[in-house]
Amino acid sequence: MPIRVTVWGENRHEKKSPEVAKIYPRGMHEAIADGLRKNADFEVVTATLDQEEHGLTDERLKNTDVLTWWGHLAHGDCTDLCVERVYHRVLQGMGLIVLHSGHYSKIFRKLMGTTCDLKWRDTGDKEIVWVTRPGHPIVQGIDDHFVIDEEEMYGEFFDIPEPMETVLISSFSGGEVFRSGVTYTRGAGRIFYFRPGHEMYPTYHNPNVIKIIENSVKWAAPTGGKNIKSGNCPAGWIDAPK
Amino acid sequence: MPIRVTVWGENRHEKKSPEVAKIYPRGMHEAIADGLRKNADFEVVTATLDQEEHGLTDERLKNTDVLTWWGHLAHGDCTDLCVERVYHRVLQGMGLIVLHSGHYSKIFRKLMGTTCDLKWRDTGDKEIVWVTRPGHPIVQGIDDHFVIDEEEMYGEFFDIPEPMETVLISSFSGGEVFRSGVTYTRGAGRIFYFRPGHEMYPTYHNPNVIKIIENSVKWAAPTGGKNIKSGNCPAGWIDAPK
Amino acid sequence: MPIRVTVWGENRHEKKSPEVAKIYPRGMHEAIADGLRKNADFEVVTATLDQEEHGLTDERLKNTDVLTWWGHLAHGDCTDLCVERVYHRVLQGMGLIVLHSGHYSKIFRKLMGTTCDLKWRDTGDKEIVWVTRPGHPIVQGIDDHFVIDEEEMYGEFFDIPEPMETVLISSFSGGEVFRSGVTYTRGAGRIFYFRPGHEMYPTYHNPNVIKIIENSVKWAAPTGGKNIKSGNCPAGWIDAPK
Amino acid sequence: MPIRVTVWGENRHEKKSPEVAKIYPRGMHEAIADGLRKNADFEVVTATLDQEEHGLTDERLKNTDVLTWWGHLAHGDCTDLCVERVYHRVLQGMGLIVLHSGHYSKIFRKLMGTTCDLKWRDTGDKEIVWVTRPGHPIVQGIDDHFVIDEEEMYGEFFDIPEPMETVLISSFSGGEVFRSGVTYTRGAGRIFYFRPGHEMYPTYHNPNVIKIIENSVKWAAPTGGKNIKSGNCPAGWIDAPK
Repeated sequence: MPIRVTVWGENRHEKKSPEVAKIYPRGMHEAIADGLRKNADFEVVTATLDQEEHGLTDERLKNTDVLTWWGHLAHGDCTDLCVERVYHRVLQGMGLIVLHSGHYSKIFRKLMGTTCDLKWRDTGDKEIVWVTRPGHPIVQGIDDHFVIDEEEMYGEFFDIPEPMETVLISSFSGGEVFRSGVTYTRGAGRIFYFRPGHEMYPTYHNPNVIKIIENSVKWAAPTGGKNIKSGNCPAGWIDAPK
Repeated sequence: MPIRVTVWGENRHEKKSPEVAKIYPRGMHEAIADGLRKNADFEVVTATLDQEEHGLTDERLKNTDVLTWWGHLAHGDCTDLCVERVYHRVLQGMGLIVLHSGHYSKIFRKLMGTTCDLKWRDTGDKEIVWVTRPGHPIVQGIDDHFVIDEEEMYGEFFDIPEPMETVLISSFSGGEVFRSGVTYTRGAGRIFYFRPGHEMYPTYHNPNVIKIIENSVKWAAPTGGKNIKSGNCPAGWIDAPK
Repeated sequence: MPIRVTVWGENRHEKKSPEVAKIYPRGMHEAIADGLRKNADFEVVTATLDQEEHGLTDERLKNTDVLTWWGHLAHGDCTDLCVERVYHRVLQGMGLIVLHSGHYSKIFRKLMGTTCDLKWRDTGDKEIVWVTRPGHPIVQGIDDHFVIDEEEMYGEFFDIPEPMETVLISSFSGGEVFRSGVTYTRGAGRIFYFRPGHEMYPTYHNPNVIKIIENSVKWAAPTGGKNIKSGNCPAGWIDAPK
Repeated sequence: MPIRVTVWGENRHEKKSPEVAKIYPRGMHEAIADGLRKNADFEVVTATLDQEEHGLTDERLKNTDVLTWWGHLAHGDCTDLCVERVYHRVLQGMGLIVLHSGHYSKIFRKLMGTTCDLKWRDTGDKEIVWVTRPGHPIVQGIDDHFVIDEEEMYGEFFDIPEPMETVLISSFSGGEVFRSGVTYTRGAGRIFYFRPGHEMYPTYHNPNVIKIIENSVKWAAPTGGKNIKSGNCPAGWIDAPK
């Protein structure tokens, strides 16, 4: 059975900035989707903020196994209804891959329970991404580090809960460090935050970056939902015939 | 320097139910506070839902090192303003001890990022509380288990994120299990959830229960706030004179 | 590509005890292997203590993706050479599933760094196994709990490091609790400890038990080894041509 | 009650190398001990490899609350008896602070269950140490980062289990990163690994470094031992009179 992936993009920079449009003529979301479509086990669709219901109808989300999320300028424009829908689906088992400035999205902050704040600088630092959990499915096929020649700097303290696993840590030419790949579970859902991806750089054309997103989609795909009884359980319910 | 503790109680059951009032004539919060006041290093005050601003003014919270939280009937009556204030203070370093049915409070769910749902049954199960992290400050002075003769049952699956530490696990006579003592950090704050404490039983007169709350207050007391720069950091800021 | 599974069994009880031999005429290891062989993606072989090199030659281990381990009577008879071989392979990425009394094996204790001691009682307690991480690949297809009518009791404190994930917790009719399914990583390898499986009961004929072992094999299968440089890295090595 | 600290040092470089002896005339261990002695709540003694029983007699360890460990050249010269003694005491609740090249000591590797291997380069990189868990007792009084002008580089992948908490991450001028402050529990004992401290640099005269070691000693001090029953527990033991 294929993994049904929805690649969500804010798609605002691409419309406003010729520089961004030049790097991503069909939008960052389509670049990411193109990268994922090379995996024959994935069924990939895209959705964007300015579509009706942000392209994330109830129907669409019910038919999504893994959702990737890139937003930056317009986190506040995402309706709370949409946030609640995504939240619900994550707890039921949908995977969520949060990309770069998506750290500050409503949905990621809601799932983390923290501000998700950080340091940043957009002057084209060189980023070196180091693998800190070799053998993890998310870094399958990735060398022990890789270099991105120019990226926005994100620096610690990154205000997230202690991760389940810290898979990647970056350094920047300015001397900062950042936990660039971290995993969580919430309810039955698996969540991966992945740092790189500033709109001004061709990061989503980088094979290592796309490979990690592809791996994370496989890792986050649901493996059985939340088949869990809650609420009042009268005495003897365990032995009662179903 | 003393640890400034605010014991917060919903204080509704006590006013409505003669049975509860008989067990806790001055309210559950005062029983908990009395237990904590025996520690000369604590300065303990109480606050309740029906006080102005729920007794949790900005001033009060700024002067609270550790807040304990018991609520049940009226989670929805707690204003979002109050939730935001507590949330902010936790991220800045205030300790938070969430008790029993407080699992379903707005503030705990916000900090966890999950539903915090569970199974329950109120027919006076015998609860055995097992220590699963001996040597932890929170179980200092506690034997390897202790028994509570009658308590409400809470059963797994408890929809919380993977704890940093699972300090206590309970069994119930019905056969259910529950992670009864779990720790988290959020921002600079430490959080402890502690299960026992149904209003119909004299649980907060139990010396083991009070001892664990006392220990958790010490564990959760702030040790330095969040002295952390966020936002734009221009090139060279690290070496710039302060 | 199939997952190459080696099911290792001590195979001493089966030879000494008619009761055990009756439940497991070809040995416990063959019962486990039979269960796993139903998965067409697995290539399953068995190995036992009294074979040459305990059936775990260097060659065999190099061709093993996931090793399952059941031992009890004779942990001390396992050579240190064998332990070192398994240890090495785990760090390189081989999955390891440690079953029941294997908690006290040399290899598990070496990987954990603790004594792995626990409470026990062999009087046929009823065990209820509760899922505490729904949606986890290891509990795919498992209900929110299942009952084993008779099993040996294992009780907390289980002297293991804080698990990465606590997937299952058991209660016993005597009132004890136990973290029955816990995950770890060591180097590039994934480790799952799974409690049930006393030799005197037909536990490895239980479909839930077999299903969980099958799931854990899939979860623990290597996804890329430890492609990691260690040691002296002269200045500039990152940018040097490979 | 004071915290009884034993500062253990290999004390070989100091005897062999005039450069090291110049920085640490009485040995690195005495520099660390001097730093800790400023805390009036500590009772600090030192011990070294070439003393009888490495200065770590059974008596000495029984009277140690927290042990700090620096070794490098001569890990192999530490007797297995000494390693077993320290191991036992940690599981019983003694705190252990492992410093710099102590990552490769027998005791740390035994407690971790991994190789604890890493990358290194000794050409005086500038190290920036970043706080990644603000509010943690171990970083009390530490700014959000601090700089060490010259240090040995340690780089990821650091082959340790996923830490309970990652408190500090360093960057180096060569572009490497390293988890420089990580916490674990083993049995009733708390363990902190802290990276800085190459013998060729005056790192243990750095107030930030000493402050972190001091904080970690307080954090790791025992809070109740391992009062835990193990082994056979006959039916009904829980309710039996003691």
